[in-house]
Amino acid sequence: MNYPQVVIVGAGFAGINAVKALASYPVEVTLIDKKNYHTFYPLLYQVSAAELTSEQIAFPIRSFLRKYDDTDFILGEVTGLDRERNFVVLDDQNSIPYDYLILATGSKPFFFGTPGAEQHCMTIDTLQNGEKLRSQVLASFEKATRVEYQDRKKELLRFVIIGAGPTGVEYAAALAELIDGPLRKDFPHLDMTEVEIILVDALNSVLPRIDADKIQQIAKKRLHDLGVTIRLNAEVDAVTEERVKFKNGDAITAETKIWTAGVTTSPIFKEWGLPVTDRGDIIVQDTLQLTDSHNEFAIGDIARLENSDPLPKLAPVAIQQGEVAGKNIGRLVTGKPLKEFTYADRGSLIVLGRYRAVAKLGDHEFGGVLAWLIWGLVHIYYLIGFRRRLLVFINWLWDLFRFEKVERLITTNS
Amino acid sequence: MNYPQVVIVGAGFAGINAVKALASYPVEVTLIDKKNYHTFYPLLYQVSAAELTSEQIAFPIRSFLRKYDDTDFILGEVTGLDRERNFVVLDDQNSIPYDYLILATGSKPFFFGTPGAEQHCMTIDTLQNGEKLRSQVLASFEKATRVEYQDRKKELLRFVIIGAGPTGVEYAAALAELIDGPLRKDFPHLDMTEVEIILVDALNSVLPRIDADKIQQIAKKRLHDLGVTIRLNAEVDAVTEERVKFKNGDAITAETKIWTAGVTTSPIFKEWGLPVTDRGDIIVQDTLQLTDSHNEFAIGDIARLENSDPLPKLAPVAIQQGEVAGKNIGRLVTGKPLKEFTYADRGSLIVLGRYRAVAKLGDHEFGGVLAWLIWGLVHIYYLIGFRRRLLVFINWLWDLFRFEKVERLITTNS
Repeated sequence: MNYPQVVIVGAGFAGINAVKALASYPVEVTLIDKKNYHTFYPLLYQVSAAELTSEQIAFPIRSFLRKYDDTDFILGEVTGLDRERNFVVLDDQNSIPYDYLILATGSKPFFFGTPGAEQHCMTIDTLQNGEKLRSQVLASFEKATRVEYQDRKKELLRFVIIGAGPTGVEYAAALAELIDGPLRKDFPHLDMTEVEIILVDALNSVLPRIDADKIQQIAKKRLHDLGVTIRLNAEVDAVTEERVKFKNGDAITAETKIWTAGVTTSPIFKEWGLPVTDRGDIIVQDTLQLTDSHNEFAIGDIARLENSDPLPKLAPVAIQQGEVAGKNIGRLVTGKPLKEFTYADRGSLIVLGRYRAVAKLGDHEFGGVLAWLIWGLVHIYYLIGFRRRLLVFINWLWDLFRFEKVERLITTNS
Repeated sequence: MNYPQVVIVGAGFAGINAVKALASYPVEVTLIDKKNYHTFYPLLYQVSAAELTSEQIAFPIRSFLRKYDDTDFILGEVTGLDRERNFVVLDDQNSIPYDYLILATGSKPFFFGTPGAEQHCMTIDTLQNGEKLRSQVLASFEKATRVEYQDRKKELLRFVIIGAGPTGVEYAAALAELIDGPLRKDFPHLDMTEVEIILVDALNSVLPRIDADKIQQIAKKRLHDLGVTIRLNAEVDAVTEERVKFKNGDAITAETKIWTAGVTTSPIFKEWGLPVTDRGDIIVQDTLQLTDSHNEFAIGDIARLENSDPLPKLAPVAIQQGEVAGKNIGRLVTGKPLKEFTYADRGSLIVLGRYRAVAKLGDHEFGGVLAWLIWGLVHIYYLIGFRRRLLVFINWLWDLFRFEKVERLITTNS
């Protein structure tokens, strides 16, 4: 007999959790992704900080699918959607028919139209770009050993991080510890007081979207202790090859500019005639079905619930939505009533280097070693695969006890 | 006081062993390399077989140098040499003066002038190319799931390895096990009998340069058991985008063509006026000094001893020469007589997949589990760093007991 065909586009947190949820229903699942691996994005900044390797946070999708019957994988990009005849079109012009569709393609950096930002800023959004940032940081130190002019040296050793959200804050802390530990030992002839890490935000606080004053204060103090310069209320006007220019006329000259200020979704959804918001997110019902559809779902970073405030574009939301969307398709197939999605906010955890983190768990806001331990356990737990967990754990132990970030290879040209 | 300046070009096995040997002498050492890491080349083919990650076989040079006083590192390429005034020129036009110079820049693939070979063959010579080959192999399987024409599918699943020396043989075995294990599970809908691995050599035996008939026979049988097709006495005439053409008019159509047939050195040595052989190797005395020089040495793959038969271009030779060249400079500095290099051939070890290897140790030629155990211990031992040894060991255990090659990411475009 033919089972109903479910096509899932995107193998991020949302997509793979939809696969899991569908495992117990009589359906055939096809998962499509541009990459052959799932990326554990919450730890990607640690690749950029030479703490972890790409392989430690990426998992081959086909390995993950092995334990699920009636699932298949296609490596490819979905470039078209025919909603009347129910098929998606791939970049090689093949079309894949569906009875049910889940869109879970995730987000990409958003530059708010800032001139030069996309061209001149590095981002922490893909494995390749994560490695590229690591290579650029390390190559800047190598170059700094060989330049004569003091100004050029300072430019090379200045790192501007634009956006003081979780990624910006976590990377600033990790970068500070990379420099004030391994790199200090690697470059004994460089004067490390010349290194500057500058964390910039247009709003008036670090972690501005985490509504917890205490957390923000702890994070700010910790970053200060790590030697990170914080510039708030600093709106970026433009980025050039040499510098970050601010709206007030000020500017910072720096070789390395890192953009962690926002994310957006693909403009293609609008072209496909899907219901979208002004910013391009797909509008969904409480069941995660598109507002104009019965059999099409959108989940994760690209989804905007029509009846609630915007949710943060984070892994926990994607995981929970993947589960609900998968089960709702199962319910449709088996003739049961659908359930509505409600986000169970388990809180925020932001790590600030060794032994330090901040946590907002329910009404509890706290920092220090306990927050850090919880952070470590949660992230190890959510990594896929025992061997991968073990390897990440080993690298973290190395950092803790030997004050060492071991993955310091310059593997891409900067 | 000013110590004599020693400049070492190349941080391969030869270069880093020269650094070690110089540590006990009153000299200042500058090590120059194009990469910021040392690569453990004997295991590079395992990166191409999805067995190990790049980071597991690469070691940041500055980490290695930390324990040596009076040593410095420069990330750069040496593009010029002034032998009269004793300085090397870097790609950024800086010049570095030397009292003693060690050239240890290693070799690169040699294509014997075969038309199209360099353009259309993949190589296992750098970390980047090793990863590229892994990505190409995995991407070929992904593509094969989506093509309709049987001929095209067979092309995608055909892998031609040109050159049945140690690298070709070891990679053929590793590739066969990658396919007949993990990939068989990853691609349940592909017919694995359509996969072909073809190992080609112009000479009349596998491992032609290992003068041990028994070893050659064991290797041949083992490759046969693994499903590898061996074509001997097959001289390659040309390589095109689609196929490998042989001198006898025959041809094999294949997407993936891998060249492991030979290595050569840089033509720049001749331009610099160094004493070189027809093939471009630098001619050295028994002390490893250039034949026309007192203070300049060449070691490793680029060196050709004037008074002995050519040595194999392998890690053990490079390691031993690095040690002798370093000590000889120490002897020059401290006014002692130089020693002559003689190669202590400890034998050959070639691994042929799980539990199998062939060994030629002195007069003993044997295969099987014992050879494989020795191979594993030797390679783990020579890897730099305890953590790296541990991680490689974990990956190998995974392969042994779970029949799994875990690093199956497509990270580069093919």
